[in-house]
Amino acid sequence: MSKHIVVIGAVALGPKAACRLKRLIPDAKVTMVDKSDVISYGGCGIPYYVSGDVSDSNELLSTSFHMLRDIPFFKDVKGVDVLTKTEALAIDRENKTVRLRDLDSGEERDLDYDHIVLATGAAPRRLPIPGADLPGVHYVAGLRDAESIRMAVTKGRVERAVIVGAGFIGLEMAEALADMWDVKTSVVEIAGQVLPGLVGPALAEMAQKHLRDKGITLHLNATVDKIEGEDGVTGVVIGGERLEADMVIIGAGVIPNTGLAKDAGLAVSSRGGVEVDDRMRTSDPDIYAGGDCVEIKNMITGKPFYLPLGSMANRQGRIIGANLAGGDSRFEGAVGSFCVKIFDKCAAGAGMSLETAQKNGFNAASALILMFDRAHFYPEKQLMALELVVEKETRRILGIQGFGGAGDAVVGRVNAVAGLLSHKAVIEDICTLELAYSPPFTAAMDILNAVANMADNVLAGRNVGVGPNAFMEMWEERDSGKYFFLDCREEADAKPFLERFPEYWNNIPQGLVATRLDEIPKDRRVVLICNTGGRSYEAQITLAHAGYENVINVHGGMGMINMCGFEL
Amino acid sequence: MSKHIVVIGAVALGPKAACRLKRLIPDAKVTMVDKSDVISYGGCGIPYYVSGDVSDSNELLSTSFHMLRDIPFFKDVKGVDVLTKTEALAIDRENKTVRLRDLDSGEERDLDYDHIVLATGAAPRRLPIPGADLPGVHYVAGLRDAESIRMAVTKGRVERAVIVGAGFIGLEMAEALADMWDVKTSVVEIAGQVLPGLVGPALAEMAQKHLRDKGITLHLNATVDKIEGEDGVTGVVIGGERLEADMVIIGAGVIPNTGLAKDAGLAVSSRGGVEVDDRMRTSDPDIYAGGDCVEIKNMITGKPFYLPLGSMANRQGRIIGANLAGGDSRFEGAVGSFCVKIFDKCAAGAGMSLETAQKNGFNAASALILMFDRAHFYPEKQLMALELVVEKETRRILGIQGFGGAGDAVVGRVNAVAGLLSHKAVIEDICTLELAYSPPFTAAMDILNAVANMADNVLAGRNVGVGPNAFMEMWEERDSGKYFFLDCREEADAKPFLERFPEYWNNIPQGLVATRLDEIPKDRRVVLICNTGGRSYEAQITLAHAGYENVINVHGGMGMINMCGFEL
Repeated sequence: MSKHIVVIGAVALGPKAACRLKRLIPDAKVTMVDKSDVISYGGCGIPYYVSGDVSDSNELLSTSFHMLRDIPFFKDVKGVDVLTKTEALAIDRENKTVRLRDLDSGEERDLDYDHIVLATGAAPRRLPIPGADLPGVHYVAGLRDAESIRMAVTKGRVERAVIVGAGFIGLEMAEALADMWDVKTSVVEIAGQVLPGLVGPALAEMAQKHLRDKGITLHLNATVDKIEGEDGVTGVVIGGERLEADMVIIGAGVIPNTGLAKDAGLAVSSRGGVEVDDRMRTSDPDIYAGGDCVEIKNMITGKPFYLPLGSMANRQGRIIGANLAGGDSRFEGAVGSFCVKIFDKCAAGAGMSLETAQKNGFNAASALILMFDRAHFYPEKQLMALELVVEKETRRILGIQGFGGAGDAVVGRVNAVAGLLSHKAVIEDICTLELAYSPPFTAAMDILNAVANMADNVLAGRNVGVGPNAFMEMWEERDSGKYFFLDCREEADAKPFLERFPEYWNNIPQGLVATRLDEIPKDRRVVLICNTGGRSYEAQITLAHAGYENVINVHGGMGMINMCGFEL
Repeated sequence: MSKHIVVIGAVALGPKAACRLKRLIPDAKVTMVDKSDVISYGGCGIPYYVSGDVSDSNELLSTSFHMLRDIPFFKDVKGVDVLTKTEALAIDRENKTVRLRDLDSGEERDLDYDHIVLATGAAPRRLPIPGADLPGVHYVAGLRDAESIRMAVTKGRVERAVIVGAGFIGLEMAEALADMWDVKTSVVEIAGQVLPGLVGPALAEMAQKHLRDKGITLHLNATVDKIEGEDGVTGVVIGGERLEADMVIIGAGVIPNTGLAKDAGLAVSSRGGVEVDDRMRTSDPDIYAGGDCVEIKNMITGKPFYLPLGSMANRQGRIIGANLAGGDSRFEGAVGSFCVKIFDKCAAGAGMSLETAQKNGFNAASALILMFDRAHFYPEKQLMALELVVEKETRRILGIQGFGGAGDAVVGRVNAVAGLLSHKAVIEDICTLELAYSPPFTAAMDILNAVANMADNVLAGRNVGVGPNAFMEMWEERDSGKYFFLDCREEADAKPFLERFPEYWNNIPQGLVATRLDEIPKDRRVVLICNTGGRSYEAQITLAHAGYENVINVHGGMGMINMCGFEL
């Protein structure tokens, strides 16, 4: 008789593991249980359902060939038994039974198992503040929450919304509310930037500029003290300031659902997250776990980390299915690839940001570049920013982050690096990375090659520079006499700045720097700037050759300063 | 005193090597010579200049900050001396001089060198047929050719054009003429498909369908016998058929310019191409070479191959510049990444097609998939086809090719694999490849992961199938009684085919196959088809489990058959 597999949780990993097992062993007996009445839905699609891009929530519940993934679908098409509105209360590992409760009738019963797949997912982090449970406070925990958000906005009951958290969910929900429903939307973030921990300050500034251009109000370095209202939300108080709000959406991260695992005596990390080996087995080899409830290995640090993404769940689910079928399939870990649409732009990354790398103990540096995303002579091009994070001693690539207008192009550059991170790729691997070349899609020396070349020059000490944020700090101190700001562009480009700041702004086109050294002081820090950082780099070489020792290049140049929304 | 570097050829590799050297050693004395009066131009942009997308040929000659890359630019901004309209006649390696001729005055002189960089490029392959030198026959050899083509089309002198060769240049020029200038354009190709050797038959068929939809006439398996005309082209004769033509463009590949190297006694491959080591040194260590005039190592086969692309020239030029400066920079080889815009679509690839792999002695198989390029519930999605080529024994990835509508998305998938090819990635590396995930850009189980999963199933013998071309061959034999065609879609999808082909077409929705086995014969080959090949794969598993031994799945399904333009 074939074994009985009980899958607890039926959203992403559970169905994937069950269906993969059934394809390998069509006789396998699989029972999948879930607390909710909706199963196997594309939870990552919720912001696009709220926005209206996805018109009906059933689309998130359907296959690409428009079949609803409901109980009969799993029974007839996949051969998997599903029990919805059924909670798994406890696992008796000695007797190999799972205690189930029917949430409608309240009846309880035991189900025998040979193997369990724990796919219990995660729950939104609740805010321990007054008013956090008021009607109108939403957590984007599942499809039913999404439906209630959308119902409220479509009925026009939401004029002002406050979103707490500027991570993926926060930014996606901000766009969903503001873009389609014209809701006045504020985002409150405890860190000093959006996408904290994920991208560096320059890329974050560019994203913030774009969000503000689209009408989003950002409150950074801000915490919510309380949510006000009686029958429903009326406002949010942050640091003494009150924001009017008819709706609050909390996107403050998620916490893995590990109660069942803990109670059963399975190893659970102190950081939260069920511990699994590379075959996705828990400390009990008869019990597998994956998706949002486990912690996995970070392939760059070698340490455990938590990466609750649907893409992880799908990959891990397939591996669990194969192993349940007697295979030996391994999940080596992850590097933390991500991408997020922000209105007309996209931010993406893989591996670690500079700050995250340094926090993890790496002696890291980064190269920050602004360039066209395809041949500069091709008409349909956009500026893209990339930041490549490298380890100084080993030259190993630790991470890459990008921001730009052509989303597929940004994501494509990040993905080209993502797979190489776990192969311990070094700078030279990206310098010569053989991107498919044609002017409508890439440049002969593509931005990805260029940012690696730049990292090479940064580590060699040839390209010594700062990003736009640090430039602005120097510019604020322009009266200190410490800095000599030198614009290396042609005179026409520099002219408006020369006129506005005659006492601070200087201009020598890069090609003339070598012949006009007498105009450049040696006793002040020379701050070189051009449109993107390329010509100023060449000027920096000229100055280094001429014996200047205190020269700094503004990476990303005026282009990036503008994209950050900084005003001189 | 610093060394004198003579760079012969000033289009792509030459300037790159010269400028990189100058950035590393600003004192270096560099002289760059070129036969032409135009230098340092984006030759790959020629089709977009001909089309009018690039309005002025100066844009191909300018930097991204709109400076013309002419003699004064190289002198003032880069510190490089340039001699245009100057031919390098001979290299005297004993006396370390280069013999130069001024093409205007005819004067000759010797230039001393310490190092030479050979960047002599390649010349278009000429056709040994009558009429190949008639006015109106063009070879796209350089910017001046491009200008003459564009002048002819803008003056309305071209109503009908014949393009010989359906490689990159051929297809790009076909689009340039037909799309913008409404020229009736035919493409003649000696092979049986477009992009021969680069993509497999299914992807080629899709490209051909799209070209035909855009008004291009294709003559495949056809050779040009002669070009007719007196003062200028009037027609082209292929296999007895005469095509009217006012213009002929030959895109029949290029031949490396190695005369100078050969005459100097440098090692030149029998296949053509100067031989270089991994530091880009020729057999004379004082002479470097790179770009279109060299042959390089194929990192998959380990054998030499020829890859004349601007992207190669740029990467190699930087390496030569570093080595000239005393560095130890290596060029490990290439995998042959490519992409080409074909009207609204894009074809791209890296590594080898199935046919090329087999020709190179690999025991190879491929997986061919059709899927949406992002989450299937996201509204702005398009179908993408990917073919993943793998070695059967080692499971190593040998190549990937793609075709689809969102070009950046196709190129992005190819690039995500390109860098892994030289790391000897295996199927499992792509199954778990951590593509950045968000519904607007990718699917949770992205098409790239899915095609690797499919390759796994193909090699395991679970997914036994054929592409659309082989399906059509079976369909042609539908009267033979050998086949039982079984549509596994829901009845509504199958109905039109059931009505048109009642005697040949059968329908059992995939979920019902297990319960309706009595309708499926065991003594005929069962040909399973659905929309894309996914549901028919599940049906194949059901049939295999039920003991059927002669079942074949149509990879890509009806979707790909339609995209190929095949009519049942």
